[in-house]
Order: sequence, then structure tokens, then C-alpha cells
Amino acid sequence: MVSRRSFLSNTAGALVTAGVISRVNAQSVPEAPLMGSAATQPPPMPTTGRPFKPVVTLNGWSLPWRMQGDVKEFHLVAEPVEREVAPGMTAHLWGYNGQSPGPTIECVEGDRVRIFVTNKLPEITTVHWHGVHVPNGMDGVAGLTQPPIKPGDTWVYEFDMQRAGTFMYHPHADGMVQFAMGMMGTIIVHPEDLAMHEVDRDFVFLLNAYDIEPGSYTPRVSTMTDFNLWTFNSRAFPGISPMVVRQGDRVRIRVGNLTMTNHPIHLHGHSFEVTGTDGGWVPETARWPEATIDIGVGQMRAIEFIADAPGDWAFHCHKTHHAMNAMAHDVPTSIGVDFEEAAVKLRRLIPEYMVMGDRGMAEMTEMKMELPENTLPMMAGDGPHGSIGMGGMFTTFKVRVEQPPDDYSDPGWYEPPAGSTAHRQDSES
Amino acid sequence: MVSRRSFLSNTAGALVTAGVISRVNAQSVPEAPLMGSAATQPPPMPTTGRPFKPVVTLNGWSLPWRMQGDVKEFHLVAEPVEREVAPGMTAHLWGYNGQSPGPTIECVEGDRVRIFVTNKLPEITTVHWHGVHVPNGMDGVAGLTQPPIKPGDTWVYEFDMQRAGTFMYHPHADGMVQFAMGMMGTIIVHPEDLAMHEVDRDFVFLLNAYDIEPGSYTPRVSTMTDFNLWTFNSRAFPGISPMVVRQGDRVRIRVGNLTMTNHPIHLHGHSFEVTGTDGGWVPETARWPEATIDIGVGQMRAIEFIADAPGDWAFHCHKTHHAMNAMAHDVPTSIGVDFEEAAVKLRRLIPEYMVMGDRGMAEMTEMKMELPENTLPMMAGDGPHGSIGMGGMFTTFKVRVEQPPDDYSDPGWYEPPAGSTAHRQDSES
Amino acid sequence: MVSRRSFLSNTAGALVTAGVISRVNAQSVPEAPLMGSAATQPPPMPTTGRPFKPVVTLNGWSLPWRMQGDVKEFHLVAEPVEREVAPGMTAHLWGYNGQSPGPTIECVEGDRVRIFVTNKLPEITTVHWHGVHVPNGMDGVAGLTQPPIKPGDTWVYEFDMQRAGTFMYHPHADGMVQFAMGMMGTIIVHPEDLAMHEVDRDFVFLLNAYDIEPGSYTPRVSTMTDFNLWTFNSRAFPGISPMVVRQGDRVRIRVGNLTMTNHPIHLHGHSFEVTGTDGGWVPETARWPEATIDIGVGQMRAIEFIADAPGDWAFHCHKTHHAMNAMAHDVPTSIGVDFEEAAVKLRRLIPEYMVMGDRGMAEMTEMKMELPENTLPMMAGDGPHGSIGMGGMFTTFKVRVEQPPDDYSDPGWYEPPAGSTAHRQDSES
Repeated sequence: MVSRRSFLSNTAGALVTAGVISRVNAQSVPEAPLMGSAATQPPPMPTTGRPFKPVVTLNGWSLPWRMQGDVKEFHLVAEPVEREVAPGMTAHLWGYNGQSPGPTIECVEGDRVRIFVTNKLPEITTVHWHGVHVPNGMDGVAGLTQPPIKPGDTWVYEFDMQRAGTFMYHPHADGMVQFAMGMMGTIIVHPEDLAMHEVDRDFVFLLNAYDIEPGSYTPRVSTMTDFNLWTFNSRAFPGISPMVVRQGDRVRIRVGNLTMTNHPIHLHGHSFEVTGTDGGWVPETARWPEATIDIGVGQMRAIEFIADAPGDWAFHCHKTHHAMNAMAHDVPTSIGVDFEEAAVKLRRLIPEYMVMGDRGMAEMTEMKMELPENTLPMMAGDGPHGSIGMGGMFTTFKVRVEQPPDDYSDPGWYEPPAGSTAHRQDSES
Repeated sequence: MVSRRSFLSNTAGALVTAGVISRVNAQSVPEAPLMGSAATQPPPMPTTGRPFKPVVTLNGWSLPWRMQGDVKEFHLVAEPVEREVAPGMTAHLWGYNGQSPGPTIECVEGDRVRIFVTNKLPEITTVHWHGVHVPNGMDGVAGLTQPPIKPGDTWVYEFDMQRAGTFMYHPHADGMVQFAMGMMGTIIVHPEDLAMHEVDRDFVFLLNAYDIEPGSYTPRVSTMTDFNLWTFNSRAFPGISPMVVRQGDRVRIRVGNLTMTNHPIHLHGHSFEVTGTDGGWVPETARWPEATIDIGVGQMRAIEFIADAPGDWAFHCHKTHHAMNAMAHDVPTSIGVDFEEAAVKLRRLIPEYMVMGDRGMAEMTEMKMELPENTLPMMAGDGPHGSIGMGGMFTTFKVRVEQPPDDYSDPGWYEPPAGSTAHRQDSES
Repeated sequence: MVSRRSFLSNTAGALVTAGVISRVNAQSVPEAPLMGSAATQPPPMPTTGRPFKPVVTLNGWSLPWRMQGDVKEFHLVAEPVEREVAPGMTAHLWGYNGQSPGPTIECVEGDRVRIFVTNKLPEITTVHWHGVHVPNGMDGVAGLTQPPIKPGDTWVYEFDMQRAGTFMYHPHADGMVQFAMGMMGTIIVHPEDLAMHEVDRDFVFLLNAYDIEPGSYTPRVSTMTDFNLWTFNSRAFPGISPMVVRQGDRVRIRVGNLTMTNHPIHLHGHSFEVTGTDGGWVPETARWPEATIDIGVGQMRAIEFIADAPGDWAFHCHKTHHAMNAMAHDVPTSIGVDFEEAAVKLRRLIPEYMVMGDRGMAEMTEMKMELPENTLPMMAGDGPHGSIGMGGMFTTFKVRVEQPPDDYSDPGWYEPPAGSTAHRQDSES
């Protein structure tokens, strides 16, 4: 799924104009792998640099690197992308290296990293390393800590990953537009001591939201509250991978929020604790059990628990409109228009007219409504007992009793790293 | 207030079609008590099963049960209801057993419960036991863990209440519509050890929100953010019971949020700690003092404190629009229309025209405006010093110095359970 | 900047009608200082009463008092004010003593305070001392604990400041309007023991939001969610003072939220802990590190950290629309109108038309658009590396290596109190 592309030719000039030539040799720019798929990629074991237990990025992938002496070099390319939100709908977003969100950057506490950022957008950008303690000049705030990266230019960030934890990267230039277009990614800094904060399964994803008019492809970037597409890593149910674990596994799920509102993430069948934020790890004395964790904008929450209850459990944002796809609230639907217009008129004539007493919306999951092109049904997804009737920020957390099989036909069914036979992503490129 | 109704005749057929006949004998379906009042019901002491100290459900009641061997049997009926939101306004909602929210289900840690759910709605439903650790097949997620319950059918849930705490129940089928219509209730699992987490007064209610156009009765179900009726247990001030305690009482107030936004609940005159969530109890080392607790959607928070300051204290959501009734923000009012239209015009002519410098809205509490039918005034409620001028999510917390009297004319003035002479609800049915 | 005004003549009559004459002699009403500037005022060291280390109120000031025996007397005047939101825009608000927010009230744990409140608004008001434990009759809830203060009247509140901490004051009468107009202020109660909770730098401000149509001056008071001006202490970037500290300083920033939504406040370059709320101090066992703290409405959060990373760091609300000025989301802009209208039409003809792929909004910071009168640019602010392109709830946190100079040309560059040569505010009046 990963393809290799070289920036040696087409970025050499850019590097000069970007003024980074003094800090790095043009010929040393690493390749920028490109991901063509929105499927969850099996986590690759590191073959260079220090060892770590990789995370599973939900409907995402981790960015390969190359070692240049003791420095880990990554190459992010900010660019327009086509992201499949779920089968049947593709969004025209801005992202990194072919997808939105961008690839997960994984490294180890103490690593020195050098991250090349090439701007293939039609406007300026920067990258801010949210939560990472970096020197001021590396903080990526346009105007304040650096000039913006112009279209065509490549900028180099270089710093030490001082602390283990979960962080984010995103632009700090024209933020309203660039967030609304999907520019964001996750940074995982693994502890140097492999036994520290060790879990059996480790998932990560970001919360994002879009306002894409049914029938169109590109988000409206000026929307403040009335988004109609609520997503995990720019994917909507039923397009989101399940998270699959074995009974008894200690599980961590890391979730960052880069939307415009809080998202209360609810797990069925289990209680959990918040064990980490984008500020660091939560001491044990400060933890308490939750069934639903409300994640504020710009926050990252790592939750942990023992997956002791076998079965397929719902995992979703508890705001009902956020677990639906478009046409649920603001955009009129064929049934909704009739419904509301008729109801208003009827209520004036017969105030006690009970609209909802007549129908409801569940039948919509059964109907075959004619949808606009490139539009997901409001409620979708089939389970073992019929229609699940959800959308948006919803997926399943599957606790299986048996040892997982060796094939990876189930996209969320990954071997634990110790016994991993997963091919490395960069070996495919 | 509780009336008895039998489902032996009209549900026997339904039970067959629901396919639950193999798990329970049709003749064993317990009666489904029906509540006709929106007043707070005195908490009944349990006369069967293990002892516990009941909670006071604000403007609600607890569901009677029957013991069938060692199993506690409850019967919920999902159905359209008429809920008095406050004197002068009734909403046509969906709820359980005659009211919205449904009755509180109270039991004891370790209890095995069997809960019959009869669907008298015009569409499918299910019941999810939010926060309760149940076997996967009992989790109530339509399509994923069970087929939906069809109109007319009765479904049986059976599981152990493994952990003491505060939980919720609500549908997990057509959730957007069914939440917007008021389908929800509270579950209290009392500790087996009566001394554990013991308090003198224990209140519980849910936060809910509706969009009911002034002059009509039924919520608009497609609203995502612009609700106009913000309620505690589907009641708006001045229709909400006060909470009355004695000075020195240790008080617990348990609040769950099933709206579409956060509600910061503020108590005057006291600081408090969060001692429990829908995930479990908060260890003492993890607690801290608050004056306002922000409750995310799908979260439950139990707060505790000593009521040491005598007097009548405000207790409310701190979002100002949520402590008002309809017509406050989006729906034009007779004064509002003039006000805004004139203001816009005047501002164009005279930019420095200071609209609010002329009046404000406090005078509206004094005016006798002609309101549409079935509509509450935006600001209402009389206190000892005149108009309180509030609405929505607002009530009072009354700390009294004297021993409470034996009569219950004040709906919130309940004897503590030890000396209770309150009649049991099920003896009335 | 502070001017003296006497209420002896013009309030004596009011005092009689307010019925407070029995509790205080008319001639004893203290002067009500008036602030004419929106600049951050250097913190004055107390010269009467017990010693404390004053806070810096961001773009604000602390209210001088006078000692009357052992009682600290303050005088707040609720009145229409003109507040400069940033150079180029002034809002017509309601506030206290010439500004919105009102002045910070500072005292010491155990102080007895007497606060005179004169109502020069066109409608009733009260003052509620949010988070402070006061006798019920002093709680300031109109109708419930006192009659409202009529226009022209003066009311006297008197109580003991029992606990150190950070609290707020605001009306509890016609709250929706009076919050929307900017009526609020901060209360700091310093510990009696100077070494308790001691920090090197201590900043405080409130979060507020307005809906002021571009070209006008007065907020629309009925807005529930669609505010267009998001501010720190009624100031928008680039009008907000920076916070300047020395490397190694222990810093506290206290932030209260009196808007209608959560604000996730994010600090670059540092992690921090919440050490206090409006309910009290957070025990050490209950603290954990954060990069972003989500502050609910009606909540106060004090955060603390060591400023160990030199440089200029961004400090802002992480909701992207809240770090922009008006015209960003709902109000059409000259570029936005064309953009959206054209985009909708083009998408119908050419569904894959990629609007944002063509431009973006960053170029707007470079353009010299013609703005309506009294309107801030959507994205503004110049840094050492060019346009910062932010607005609203954004400022900088500057960590300097050198000892600060003695001049105060930089408004945030204050001497620590120990070596302060700052003139006292009341000596200017």
C-alpha cells in the first residue's frame, strides 16, 4: 500500500528557496512514502533504531523512517488527498503523504528526530508538534516561531523526543481552514524501558469533523458548529475498523480531539481509567474509573483497561448526532422535509398531533432511499442481529476468547508484536 | 399515584412472537406499574429482597419489583407519554411506564435482575444498561447484540448487578430520535454493605433537552444544537422540586447527562467532590473540591458534600441560556422581535446606538406577556424576595436547621429512611 | 489611569431608597475608582491590611480598598462602559467601574469585606460571589436571597473571606443579558501564610464571548451558540497583553469561563497541572499533567508549572474558530461570500471541484481588505517571523532568560512583587 516517491529532483530547488540548505544537504532528503489505502495497516516492528512495541493506528499507518547516524529522519508531505470516508463516499481533503489524517510518527523516548516537511498545498503551512517539548524555534507557529512554509518549499524540524507519551501534529498557519480540511496526525513516543506502561494492545486515532454537503466532495471550511460528518481518523461507520483483542488483554486506546466540540467517548461492557494525556502520564493516585470520557478539543486521552468481557461491544461518541452520518440534523432529508413541514402545519391545526407517535426514524435503515451521489446513509451497518443503524463516530471493540489466527483478513485482528509476522510497510514501498 | 396494569392478556401473544417464550413463562410476566404524576415521589423502603437506603428521584419515582425466587423482576413499558414539564406546559414524549424519564431501577450489589421490556412505541426499540457490566447478549445494542424489539413485543433481559454505583438505561436503536423524545432512566445499585458510601440524603436525576416550538407539544427530533427546553428529569424551573436537607447532612446528588452538550452544574454556598461516575467510585486520593462540575454527554457524576450552610441555595446549569425557558435565544419573542429588528436598523443608521443601554430583559419577568398556548415564560419563579427570573435547569437546594416535620406537603421534604413512615409505592398500585 | 469619583452626593438618596441606610452610614460609602484604560495595570503592593503578593490581571486592574476598622471596603459600580477590545475596535458593554470585566477584588483569607454595589444600569442587577462561602443572605440571587438592586440604588454585601482561592463575581439577575453584555470580574483570596501556594508569577483572566455584528458596537444578547468574538477579559488578539516571566519561574495562571461553551486552553512548550478550582485547591495526589485544559462554563481553573523553556510560546483556546476574530464562520466576508456561493454552484456542475485546493484563507492575512467600521481583521498580529494570523482567544507566553529591566514599556513585563517599584493604583486616583 505504501509507494515510494523521491523528492530529490523536485524539491532541490525548493530547498534552496526555503533556506534550509544550510542545515541539511539537499541530497539527504529522505523519501516520502505515500499511502493509497484507508485500511488499517498492520503495525510494523522497528528494524532500525531502538526497539518498541508499535501501535495500531485505526484506519491509518505509521510513517517509515531512515536512520542518518543517530538521527531518525521522517518526511511529511502536506498535500491535497482523496480520503475514502467509508465505502461509497470519498472526501477531497488536505492531509499528509496521501491520506488524512497523516501517518503516525513513532519513535522512542530520547530519540533525536529530523522531520522534513514539504508543502504541496496551494497555500502556506507549518507543523506544530502538539504536546512535545521542543526548542522554541521548532514549535511551528507561523509568524511567531518561524516564517510560514511556502507552497513548494521544504522545511526541516529537528529536536529530541524528551518524554514518552501521545502527542499530535497539525498546522499552526491558517488553522481554521487547515483543520477543517483534515490536516493532522499522531505522534507516539514509546518509553525507552519496554516494560514501562506496557500493554498488550495499543490503538490510536484522532477525532475529526467535516461539513460536506451531500452530493459534494469538499468540506465547507467556515463551519463553526454545524458539522455533518463526525469521524474517527476521517472515517465514518461502517467504514471504521473494529478493534480486536483477546480476552484478558490489557488494552490502551489513545484518542485525540481536533474538532470544534467535546466528544464523550463511551465503551460498552468495561470500565476504564485515563492513564495519559498530551501532557504526560496520569499518576495512579489520580486515576478513577469511567464508562465515558469527555475529550475536550485539543486534548489527547489514553485510556486503559483489561478486556475481560468477551463479545462485540459498541464504542462510540455518546452525542447521538455524532453517531449518525449526514442528513441527520440540519440537512433536510426526503423523509425529514415532509415530516417537519407537515408536522408544523398539523400542529397549528391540531396542537396535540403527535408526530413521533406515528413513526420515528428507525424505518429509514430499512428503506432504500435514493441518496445523492457520494453520500453515506444516515444510519447503516449490519451486525449479527440485523441493522445496527449507526454512523459517524461508532465502531466495535471485539473481545475474542481464542488465540487469533495467523491470517489478517480481519483488518483489526493483529498479532501482538512479540509474535508478529507482519510485513514492514517500508519493505512494500 | 402508581396504578397497576397487567400484561398477561395483551402481551402473551407478543411474547411468543418475540421469541422469549423459551426463556420465561408467559404467565410469569410481572405487572408494569404506571405513574400518572410528575411530582417527586417519597422514596419507598424495600420490603422484599435485601435492605437498602433508597434514593430520591427528582420529579420521579422508583419502579416496584417482585421477587421470583432469588431474582428481582421489573417490567418496563416503552410508550408515548404526556409529561408535565412545569405547571402550564405538557410535552408529548416517549418514555417508560407513563413518564419521561422512566422510573428509577433500584437494587443491591449482587442482585440478579430480570427486566421485562414491552415495546408500545410505533417503532422498534431496545434497552442498553449504560455502565452496568452485563453479558454481551444483554447489552441492548440493536443489530449488534440482539435484534430490535418490535412494536408489541416484550423482551427479557437478565443479568447480575455486579457492582454498586449509578448507571443509566436508554435505547440503543434509533437513538437520535428516542433520546430527543425523552427515553431514559436511572439505575441505582446500592452497596451490599449499608455503611459503605453511606450518606444522609441521596438524590438523582438526568439532564435532558428538547426542542419544542412554542405552541406545540412534540419535540423536533432532528435538532442537533438549538434546543429551547433544558430540563432536569424532563422538568423545567419552576416545575422542578427543591432538594431539602437538614444542616449537617452528608448529601449525595447523582446527575447523568443525556443531552447533546456539556452541562456545568453549579451549587451555591458549598464546595463538593465527585465521588462516583458511571464507571465506578472515585478513590479518595483522586478527589478535589469543585463549585461547578462540567458533566459531559453520556456521563454520570455523583457529588458529595456536607450541607453545612443553612438557607435556600441556587442549584443550576451555569450556561445562562440553559437556566431560561423557551424564547430566550432562537425563537423570536414579541419583545425580542421588535428589539432585534429595530436594533439592526438603528445600528446601521447610528452605529453607536446602545440597545441594551435602554432596557435589558429583566422587565420581562414583570410583564404579563401573552404567551402561545402550552408555553412557559422565559423567566419565572417566585422567591421570598420577588421574582427569581429563571427557568430550565434551575432549582433550589434547601438546608434547614430544624428537624423536618412529619407531613410531606413540601414535595422535597422527606424523612430520612430510618424514620420513614412513607407508604410504599407498590402498596398503592 | 484610575480616577476617583465620589458617590457621597449622588448616592445618598439612593442609599435611602435601597434600604441599606440602617446597615451603613451614608457618609461612609467609599469612593468608587474608575479605570479608563484596557491596558494591563502593574500589580500594586498592598499598603493597608495584611500583606499579600498581588496577581496580574490580564488587561485589567485590581480594585483599591479602604480599611474601615478591621473591614476592607470596596465599591463596585455596575454601569455601561466602552471597552477597547483591541486597537481598532471598541465595544459598548456593561461592566463595573469603567471596564468590562470589572476590577479584580484581592483580599486575604480571613478578611472581612464590605462591598458596596451601586447600580447605574438601566435595569436591576445583583452580585453573586461565585465560589465564595457566604451567608445565604449575601449570596446575591435576585428573588431568592435578596430583592434586586434597582437602577440608582446601592446595596451593601458584607461577609468573611473564609478560604483562599480564586473566585468570580457576576450578576444573578437577568443573567443571560448581563453575561452577554460583559458583567463579570475575578476575586482572589490570598492565603494568610505567604509561603502557602506561593508562585513567582500569578496571572488571572476570564473567558468571555460576544456577538457583535461587524460595523456595530453592542452585543446581541439573545445569541446562544453563534458568538463571533471570543475574548480573554473582553480583549481579542492582538489586543491581549503577553504574559512575561523569567526562565525558572514557578507560574500560576488562573482562568475562569463565563461564556456559553467549553474552552480548551492550550499552552505551548510546557506541561502543567491544575492546582486549584473555584471549589478549592487540588490535593497533590489528584493532580496530573496536561498540555490543554478544557474549562467548563462557570468553572475556574488555576494551572501551575515551571517556565523552563525560553522563548515566545503561543497560549490560546484550541477551538480554531475561537482563535479568530469576527467574519470567520457565520458572518459572510467579502471573500467568503464569493467563495461559498461560487463553490456551491461549481460543485453542482463539477462535483469534484476542489475549492480549497485553489486557495485557502491564509492569503487574507496579507490582503488589505476593506473592513466595516469598528471591526477587527479575522486574522492578525505580527510576530518576529511575519504575520501570526490569529485573533480572539490567543496571546503569547514569553519566557525570558535575563533579569527583567526596570522600565515597563512592555505591558506584561512586571517586576516580581518583592522588588516592585510599581506605583500603587490608588495613589494615582
